Amino acid sequence: METYDIAVIPGDGIGTEVTSAAMEVLDTVAENHGFQLERSTYDWGTERYLDEGAMMPDDGLDRIESADSIFLGAVGHPEVPDHVTLNGLLLPIRKGFDQYICKRPNKLFEGIESPLRGYEAGDIDLVVYRENTEGEYANVGGREHRGFSNEVAVQSGLFTRKGTERIVRSAFEAATEREGHLTSITKSNAQAHSMVFWDDIVKEVSEDFPEVEVDSLLVDRASMDLVRRPEEFDVVVASNLFGDISTDIAAIITGSLGLAPSGNINEENDYPDMFEPVHGSAPDIVGQGIANPLASILTGAMMFEYLGDGKEAAAEDIWNAVEAQLADESAPRTPDLGGDAKTVDVVSDLSDRL
Amino acid sequence: METYDIAVIPGDGIGTEVTSAAMEVLDTVAENHGFQLERSTYDWGTERYLDEGAMMPDDGLDRIESADSIFLGAVGHPEVPDHVTLNGLLLPIRKGFDQYICKRPNKLFEGIESPLRGYEAGDIDLVVYRENTEGEYANVGGREHRGFSNEVAVQSGLFTRKGTERIVRSAFEAATEREGHLTSITKSNAQAHSMVFWDDIVKEVSEDFPEVEVDSLLVDRASMDLVRRPEEFDVVVASNLFGDISTDIAAIITGSLGLAPSGNINEENDYPDMFEPVHGSAPDIVGQGIANPLASILTGAMMFEYLGDGKEAAAEDIWNAVEAQLADESAPRTPDLGGDAKTVDVVSDLSDRL
Ligand SMILES: CC(C)[C@H](C(=O)O)[C@@H](O)C(=O)O
Ligand SMILES: CC(C)[C@H](C(=O)O)[C@@H](O)C(=O)O
Repeated sequence: METYDIAVIPGDGIGTEVTSAAMEVLDTVAENHGFQLERSTYDWGTERYLDEGAMMPDDGLDRIESADSIFLGAVGHPEVPDHVTLNGLLLPIRKGFDQYICKRPNKLFEGIESPLRGYEAGDIDLVVYRENTEGEYANVGGREHRGFSNEVAVQSGLFTRKGTERIVRSAFEAATEREGHLTSITKSNAQAHSMVFWDDIVKEVSEDFPEVEVDSLLVDRASMDLVRRPEEFDVVVASNLFGDISTDIAAIITGSLGLAPSGNINEENDYPDMFEPVHGSAPDIVGQGIANPLASILTGAMMFEYLGDGKEAAAEDIWNAVEAQLADESAPRTPDLGGDAKTVDVVSDLSDRL
Repeated sequence: METYDIAVIPGDGIGTEVTSAAMEVLDTVAENHGFQLERSTYDWGTERYLDEGAMMPDDGLDRIESADSIFLGAVGHPEVPDHVTLNGLLLPIRKGFDQYICKRPNKLFEGIESPLRGYEAGDIDLVVYRENTEGEYANVGGREHRGFSNEVAVQSGLFTRKGTERIVRSAFEAATEREGHLTSITKSNAQAHSMVFWDDIVKEVSEDFPEVEVDSLLVDRASMDLVRRPEEFDVVVASNLFGDISTDIAAIITGSLGLAPSGNINEENDYPDMFEPVHGSAPDIVGQGIANPLASILTGAMMFEYLGDGKEAAAEDIWNAVEAQLADESAPRTPDLGGDAKTVDVVSDLSDRL
């Protein structure tokens, strides 16, 4: 049988809970479609850090680089600062495998109430292409004169032509396959070095896509517009930080972080892509068995889309089953969606539908 | 009669319309309270830039530095890039007079519908203290290898101890006068140079304010929480960029940008503070006489609060009149609030109430 090697990193908190839930569903769907997943599971994360002083082994990337894909649960732990956990695991993989696209689709499903008045299923349907390897997340900067009155910290956003062009181009391509509308998020009025450069690249690349309508929105205005007129967004392209902010807003206006999947992608190189739900490790609900597995399951669907030819049908089965479950008032729901079901109830209902 | 010198810069687009509206109201209130405003009006803005190549004269700051306060309408023009207009007028004043606090209160008034489901008047009431002179807006960076494949742009956020401490301290002070709850917006997981420094300063300063409860939220999470649980915010402190984003979200969840005032403040030096509505120059509705003057009028109220001893009562009259007008279903409203009134109708109704 066609077999795909998946490196699974459940990570911290509810990461392990939603990952095993997702794997159960993915196995069912793979079987239905005549392929299988061969998993290697890595216990990387904050427990390991607390025991051994590192989130993953030194040669971590080498160990997973030949996998067909990476599936990650969540990273983050109340006892360790986020910049330690993230820089020890999530960000090195994104950067180390040059996963320059962070793709995050958001859709308001039937059966889900948006926190925004007057928005119904189908009204919101957008996808964010977030730059994922540089920009405001570059580890460039420093801190001097610690504790003295002249202390200063510098954090430099780094934007390269290659890094900017490729994410912008991917977003344009996505726009041609959707509604043909691209919104570029920028802050050129206040960040004239990086963002005017960004705007210039968008303009250059747009010449290859005359059929795509391009809007440019300042990040403050874009954050507002995601709240007051989210129906106007189709494909969004944004820097690392602006993509981070806008994808969280997009997740919340479509009803729940518990439904937002994401992929960290490079379609050009041979390294594996990494798929992870947008939500974090949710230490407040860990161990109760009530984590919403749907973001993680949809993340699996995204993984299938990128796994190899002909896996789109498997992905679609997952999307359809989740949509059907959400639209069904009598189906189990976890507390974040207003229900009182357990993670396992959601999974078993979904498996029945598949 | 007690007289205050006000430097008035109506600026671009609807800036002139809302400024003259506001001045009419401010004069009425001042008279009621036994003082008067002496205005010098400056025609600085994009028209001037298009004629003379500069938004304001070289010695612009010198001309207004002895005013008691500065009142600005709006800046921005469809024909000129924003980074030109902003860096030619608004940002030089904020920086040149070291107005390190950008204070932006947001309240959901009676009679105003929030775009958020289930939120009613009184549910949202917060104030943002935004750092206003440095951070991600520092004009530090550059661009090299233009047009070549190795082109790179760098935009450096600059955080000084003085600059960070003073905004954090002001926010703590504000919290002691409100609900005693401060939320610091950060991004320490991805920006370990600047934002870990920011967090350290918040921690240091918090030792002087043991009675204030402090939360730290990552900017992505904070943007989400402003949408899903805005009632939890009281005082917010944020860097220049994060404050920019969160104040626009705060404005929109409380019903309209047309209601959001702001002040650029330094209470320690002798330079004038500058007050301006949060909204921009709105080129799409300019000249129609339908701009909502309330943000500008409330901006005037904020100006009164900082003008000198005993002006708080005058400010309060304005806040009360605006609240009463909004709560009155039969009162005139501009189109952004769902009505069909003109700017002048709103002003004359308000004047009757004062
Ligand atoms: C955990 C954090 C570093 C991460 C980010 O900001 O990229 C997260 O918020 C996300 O959006 O994936
Ligand atoms: C016009 C722009 C430079 C400005 C800013 O970002 O500071 C505006 O958005 C604001 O919030 O006052």
